[in-house]
Amino acid sequence: MLIALPTILLSGEYAHMSRKTSLSGFHEWLPQERLVELHVLNTLAEVFELHGFSSIETRAVEPLGTLLRKGEIDKEVYTVSRIHETNAPDPEDTSRLALHFDLTVPFARYVIENAGHLTFPFRRYQIQKVWRGERPQEGRAREFTQADIDVVGDGALDFRHDIDVALVMAEALSTLPIGQFIIRINNRKLAEGFYQGIGLTDTAGVLRNIDKLEKIGVEKVSEALQEELGASPEQAKLALALAQIRAEDSSFVDDVRALGVENELLEEGLTELAEVIDQLYKRAPGTAVADLSIARGLDYYTGTVYETNLVGHEQLGSICSGGRYDALATKGKRTFPGVGLSIGVTRLISRMFSQDMVQASRNVPTTVYVALTDDDDWSSAQDIAQSLRARGISTEVATKAEKFGKQIRHADRRGIPYVWFTNYDEAGDASHEIKDIRSGEQVSVDLDTWMPPTDDLRPVITKVEDTAN
Amino acid sequence: MLIALPTILLSGEYAHMSRKTSLSGFHEWLPQERLVELHVLNTLAEVFELHGFSSIETRAVEPLGTLLRKGEIDKEVYTVSRIHETNAPDPEDTSRLALHFDLTVPFARYVIENAGHLTFPFRRYQIQKVWRGERPQEGRAREFTQADIDVVGDGALDFRHDIDVALVMAEALSTLPIGQFIIRINNRKLAEGFYQGIGLTDTAGVLRNIDKLEKIGVEKVSEALQEELGASPEQAKLALALAQIRAEDSSFVDDVRALGVENELLEEGLTELAEVIDQLYKRAPGTAVADLSIARGLDYYTGTVYETNLVGHEQLGSICSGGRYDALATKGKRTFPGVGLSIGVTRLISRMFSQDMVQASRNVPTTVYVALTDDDDWSSAQDIAQSLRARGISTEVATKAEKFGKQIRHADRRGIPYVWFTNYDEAGDASHEIKDIRSGEQVSVDLDTWMPPTDDLRPVITKVEDTAN
Repeated sequence: MLIALPTILLSGEYAHMSRKTSLSGFHEWLPQERLVELHVLNTLAEVFELHGFSSIETRAVEPLGTLLRKGEIDKEVYTVSRIHETNAPDPEDTSRLALHFDLTVPFARYVIENAGHLTFPFRRYQIQKVWRGERPQEGRAREFTQADIDVVGDGALDFRHDIDVALVMAEALSTLPIGQFIIRINNRKLAEGFYQGIGLTDTAGVLRNIDKLEKIGVEKVSEALQEELGASPEQAKLALALAQIRAEDSSFVDDVRALGVENELLEEGLTELAEVIDQLYKRAPGTAVADLSIARGLDYYTGTVYETNLVGHEQLGSICSGGRYDALATKGKRTFPGVGLSIGVTRLISRMFSQDMVQASRNVPTTVYVALTDDDDWSSAQDIAQSLRARGISTEVATKAEKFGKQIRHADRRGIPYVWFTNYDEAGDASHEIKDIRSGEQVSVDLDTWMPPTDDLRPVITKVEDTAN
Repeated sequence: MLIALPTILLSGEYAHMSRKTSLSGFHEWLPQERLVELHVLNTLAEVFELHGFSSIETRAVEPLGTLLRKGEIDKEVYTVSRIHETNAPDPEDTSRLALHFDLTVPFARYVIENAGHLTFPFRRYQIQKVWRGERPQEGRAREFTQADIDVVGDGALDFRHDIDVALVMAEALSTLPIGQFIIRINNRKLAEGFYQGIGLTDTAGVLRNIDKLEKIGVEKVSEALQEELGASPEQAKLALALAQIRAEDSSFVDDVRALGVENELLEEGLTELAEVIDQLYKRAPGTAVADLSIARGLDYYTGTVYETNLVGHEQLGSICSGGRYDALATKGKRTFPGVGLSIGVTRLISRMFSQDMVQASRNVPTTVYVALTDDDDWSSAQDIAQSLRARGISTEVATKAEKFGKQIRHADRRGIPYVWFTNYDEAGDASHEIKDIRSGEQVSVDLDTWMPPTDDLRPVITKVEDTAN
């Protein structure tokens, strides 16, 4: 008997995007999709730990006052209250609890609270769910997982950490089954210095408009700079010329200099960005570019800023963003500068599923299904399973001695590749056979030594290579 | 120079319990405490997967109506609303969202929604945070992590799964650095059949009172049975006699029979419990007892019920509880019976810290700190780190060529055991030495082959053996 157990494409009927969800914006993966998510999360954690980042988690809730510090983001926040609080919430009460909307703000609060217990520069990674009450669409969920790394210093933080965190993320993203990506890097000092140098003093306003470049285009940004900020046509032209500079090595420095603007802050930014790009170009070629259009408008970054696109999926938006804060947190006169990046894991994974980017070798952790010849063999079958598990082989045991065909079909439906059969002779001695459901091949095996091929030990997650072209 | 790097006791100044938390009931671990939690969670996940359980996660929120189905638990629920909903919440509106208070109710909803995509019996594990608005105390947090396994069938579920899940949890708990535990097992059919047999018809009422046995004692329960439920002194005596039966093997059956009660449901329960206990006694001796006082009052279990105590920490309450539901979920005429157990991870870990039960070999994932002799060596030092990481050795690189003593002290404060030094001769050829900070020993090493002892590759978490006695 040969039962086909094909490689499972995590799409079509399996894909979450095509299933009905009972709560819009709240993704829940099927077990086989969760295998992919786990693979992604475990891979990220492994890379982060190899680079000396410690795991932490923060509580899901913060007082509203903590969350509001960062700006206008309050409109997207979920507040939390005990069910018996039936009074209308007081909008002025900032001690009310709310679900965190990112991992940076809670981390800053954690650093302040635990500064006495941490050693600086402190390297942490944090993989948790966050919540935002935004209108759901692809790439924008109400509950989603972020994977952050940050390095935070006490008083000062060497600039080399700006290079380091980008290298770590380049390595982490390269290890995932997602294909090519580009980390686009800019520097706030460079941009702000340039705007000051051409006489545009509302640098935040310029950044906010430059941030819309991809969405609305050069013409409209130029208009907005002139109408909203009173820029001259020449100033607008220069600001836009800067934003159009892009290079994978430090040749961008000459392009900026060619615009003829002189400013001390600009020089500082040019030096920093050149150093980041040179190291990325050298150590992780093809993963990063200097892109002077990157603004990251709403966030309070003060130096290097990063955004990341998945090549061929640019319209998805950034899958990994971040930057440098001169003051990630402050405690009295003490300042904690930081630099870090955050991967939008749910955004990335949703795309992997909706675009058939990834496949799993099977649906379940289980490698072996131990069949029963007789109902009374259950306890002996548990012994067999225990022996296999001791060698790291995931094993389930049938509960009933149904016909072998039925037991095999059950294993097949579950997605388990091997079925184990045991016969006892009249002296009670056991002999064992194993069937590979995919090939139909059944062979005698030794209980104490049998191992599956390495690729069958755990589900293997791989990128689907594009064979259409 | 010899700098001591002692094994870290995760207690005293390190322990969370002695730190101030800014939000009562919401635990946050220090990085070195989180190492212990990660060890526990990874160990559990590994055991669950070896037994063929698939990971799933459910969203953090459910409509209030879904959560209320289970009973009176609503008083402990946190509701969630978008910040701009400023009207008073309508207490009657069960479509309002709330944070889940356990993982069973959301799992039941998940099974119903995804039944068409699952293969039954479906084995899942789920490790997530849950929230309850209870008054915080030791063992009772407002945000805490649960680790659940359940097997759920479509229409029917073989009784052997009741044995299986207990064996999985016995193995999982044995693998943790927590010392001895006892899974106390009872059976609702046994208890209800017995109460019916002696003429007590309000079996739920009896169970509710028996559930208080440990808290208020035999006398008070006897009084309550007579006063609240109208039991005769003889009926109360028999109900209490049943609750005092305890055995690690199926000898409890004779003890029950000796009470002279006959009832069909009782017989069914006796047979089931005897089968569970016999297998536990045989396959995981010393981990389980039949304990006929276990009631698990509020939950809608219908057969086997489990509670687990950590030996010597009984006052902490159960660290792993669960049972069998005839109908974990229903969808029209379709019924999904289930059986499962849930570990209270946060309760367990808080205890491990507050009672100095566990130690970590170090505070950080990092094994090697690459020192800099010259600021310009940073990129070469990154090459060295990359080479070590390729062999799975967690490595950090210094950012500045400070005096070696200062670089070593930094590694020491971080808790990193090894510092790597590289010298370049005039021809530019590198020679490498490594210092073990703990012993002070410094030796020449080969970059391409050096490996730390296995115990230094990752932080090792072990139980503190009680040497006081």
